[in-house]
Amino acid sequence: MSLDLKQVTVIGMGLLGGSLTLTIQRSFPGIRAVGYSRRPETREKARQLHTANEICDDLAESVKNADLVILASPVATFEKLFKELAPLLPKGCIVTDVGSTKVSVHKWAEKYLPDYVYYVGSHPIAGSEQSGVEWARDDLFERSNCFLTVTDKTDMNRVDTLKVFWKGLGCFVDIIKPADHDRIFANVSHLPHIVAAALVNASSSSELRMAGKGFMDTSRIASGPPSVWVDILVTNSKNCIKGIDRVTAELNKLKEALKQTDNELVYELLELARAKREKMIEEKIDKKEIL
Amino acid sequence: MSLDLKQVTVIGMGLLGGSLTLTIQRSFPGIRAVGYSRRPETREKARQLHTANEICDDLAESVKNADLVILASPVATFEKLFKELAPLLPKGCIVTDVGSTKVSVHKWAEKYLPDYVYYVGSHPIAGSEQSGVEWARDDLFERSNCFLTVTDKTDMNRVDTLKVFWKGLGCFVDIIKPADHDRIFANVSHLPHIVAAALVNASSSSELRMAGKGFMDTSRIASGPPSVWVDILVTNSKNCIKGIDRVTAELNKLKEALKQTDNELVYELLELARAKREKMIEEKIDKKEIL
Repeated sequence: MSLDLKQVTVIGMGLLGGSLTLTIQRSFPGIRAVGYSRRPETREKARQLHTANEICDDLAESVKNADLVILASPVATFEKLFKELAPLLPKGCIVTDVGSTKVSVHKWAEKYLPDYVYYVGSHPIAGSEQSGVEWARDDLFERSNCFLTVTDKTDMNRVDTLKVFWKGLGCFVDIIKPADHDRIFANVSHLPHIVAAALVNASSSSELRMAGKGFMDTSRIASGPPSVWVDILVTNSKNCIKGIDRVTAELNKLKEALKQTDNELVYELLELARAKREKMIEEKIDKKEIL
Repeated sequence: MSLDLKQVTVIGMGLLGGSLTLTIQRSFPGIRAVGYSRRPETREKARQLHTANEICDDLAESVKNADLVILASPVATFEKLFKELAPLLPKGCIVTDVGSTKVSVHKWAEKYLPDYVYYVGSHPIAGSEQSGVEWARDDLFERSNCFLTVTDKTDMNRVDTLKVFWKGLGCFVDIIKPADHDRIFANVSHLPHIVAAALVNASSSSELRMAGKGFMDTSRIASGPPSVWVDILVTNSKNCIKGIDRVTAELNKLKEALKQTDNELVYELLELARAKREKMIEEKIDKKEIL
């Protein structure tokens, strides 16, 4: 399947945005990858690193000829950006984003974007605890899952276009409803971040000096940028709160088993987790998500 | 400093025990590394893999000429093993173990071991989620911390011998009291395991199919062998219960902040965790624990 896009504009040149324009340049040499960042220093860095075919100083200029516009700034900036972009977007343009929560973004897109552009949500499960355009890589999306979120109003032809686009960048693509997306990602992505932060905060710095590899891995994502994560948690707070309740309930099961010296129950709970995680890893190996 | 040991006997040929005899052979070619395992299949595997200079079929035989005996079986086996070993150990022999909890082990050693042997606790912070002698490696202890636990009754000359021994295997060595050890490791090692297991158990297998790298790292240690971890948690249950309470309190702080849409507080809590973890990583780099 070929891709009928001449220009893709990425708004926001952080780790994800920069990796997008880099990977577009590698995977789709026929597409012009244009980048925009609000901050002059970021634009300067992105230019020095040849992160995109062109880095624009002006938002209107950056989207003027775009066939596809991708928002890659923090989720909390999207509402304002949609308002700003509304009068600037060319007719027929596809709009998507790489935000980690989707219900709010669909709501904002519906409210602010004109009828003659096509919004589809995207969530590529890629990133790291690092941030900034200097960490951008052209293999960040390799073998990662990308979820496209669609509602009854979504144009399925444009979904097909985005499918080809994300596959071209190296992703496995799945289609899902925004509400299902947000519920599931509260559990598998937002909750781990909350848990990692709580785990670090539960110990003193002098105790952490004694930590080994297990602690470092379990807490790795707590090193992610708080500014990005606040947006994610806040725009998905109801699901996150439910997730916290579920993990607290699981912690209490283990606590009660330890209190009662019910070694069999402790074993069962640990074995349940071990077996579930093994199944997860096996499925990911089958799917070639991990090698 | 030279090491006046002719034979070291390791009881238990799992990942840790096997890695011990392998590393002794590499680091101290003058020392005879003898291994013992209760299970004939494990002894057979260990022989095939040349895991030790000698693998004994008989416990008494294995320790008869030992200058140092290291227990590397699960912590729950130590009480029985001390009883069995008591009449078998040669005079002046040093006894240690690699157990992840230390208060109970010191108590058992004091109760069962004869006066003419010297017990010192050891806890090398090394391992992985894998288990079994086939995973044994001669670099498992490289750059890991090893804590020696001592009480008022511990012979400090033997502590010095063990210091040289563990340093020779590649460890950084620290000395600590058993109660301090167990309290700190509840926080930095046992609690992460509990949290990782609770996190996996809080989501369904169909949701876990969507998980990304963040979830996989946060939950990695939940793949560890439940048999080993039950022993650890159960022999340190009071500290683990306190740890669960502390992490639950931190989770509730985040939950309340999300409920109140107190974005500043969410930010503060995430930033506190990020900064603490960064400090931890920097200290580990300074110490050359991680490169």
